[in-house]
Amino acid sequence: MIVLGIDPGYGTLGFGIIEISGITMRAIEYGVIETPKKERFPRRLKFLADEINLLIDKHKPEAIAVEELFFQSNQKTAILVAEARGVVLLCAENSSAQLFEYTPLQIKQVLTGYGHADKLQIQKMVSVFLNLPTAPKPDDAADALAVAIAHARSASILGKFEIK
Amino acid sequence: MIVLGIDPGYGTLGFGIIEISGITMRAIEYGVIETPKKERFPRRLKFLADEINLLIDKHKPEAIAVEELFFQSNQKTAILVAEARGVVLLCAENSSAQLFEYTPLQIKQVLTGYGHADKLQIQKMVSVFLNLPTAPKPDDAADALAVAIAHARSASILGKFEIK
Repeated sequence: MIVLGIDPGYGTLGFGIIEISGITMRAIEYGVIETPKKERFPRRLKFLADEINLLIDKHKPEAIAVEELFFQSNQKTAILVAEARGVVLLCAENSSAQLFEYTPLQIKQVLTGYGHADKLQIQKMVSVFLNLPTAPKPDDAADALAVAIAHARSASILGKFEIK
Repeated sequence: MIVLGIDPGYGTLGFGIIEISGITMRAIEYGVIETPKKERFPRRLKFLADEINLLIDKHKPEAIAVEELFFQSNQKTAILVAEARGVVLLCAENSSAQLFEYTPLQIKQVLTGYGHADKLQIQKMVSVFLNLPTAPKPDDAADALAVAIAHARSASILGKFEIK
């Protein structure tokens, strides 16, 4: 099974594609989509959508796992990230993949068994699960791989579930 | 010139299509898109996108004017509306129309000359500008017509300008 994990953002969006066979998983591709800073915001959203659609076409994931927003103190930023996240959800919904959403807390718990795990602990577990020599970079890509792994682990341990 | 005005929302989205010829304008179609309450949120976003794309295909607006979010005290709701608004911006950006954004303050000022105008005053001016016997209903449709009118007035008075 191919899973695409996405850590939403409007300036930088992290993505990670993993393949699960039995109890093993491996990273197929991961990285970030950087939207052009000088462009108008709606153009940046279209840029995101086009790139995500390309990733979906290329890897044909059966599942897309998207991180839920962590509420921020800066509401202006939260709104912009939410607008980008809406675009991500639409791309996923328009694809043939099943869509799943996980909160940061769920991701931490599934990966480390501990809801207050820090970024380094998460990155460490991402490299352990995917058998990578070091933590994948940049951080947003590692976060996206973490969502994909969280889905793989939840799906195998708990059965598939769709949130919302 | 055909202008599509949109008042974004995830449960109810208002739309209003007006035609401007010289100094007169008239409403062509207005109403609301109600997304199915029992559906998963991403499915509701797809429903919105599909309906908006149908409206754009049908009326082929040259301009799409979208209301900016008014910051809300309920951040959970603000996030959901922002996710829907991201989808609206993407649909507009994917069309051949030019996209414009207006704040509630700008809309009030352009329609009534007064930034603190209340809902009834706005609705009154919408019916005056569009030569309608009564205020258009429901409210979200009237709000969407107000955005379209704000664009028409801004475009004719101030020259076209794109925000962001």
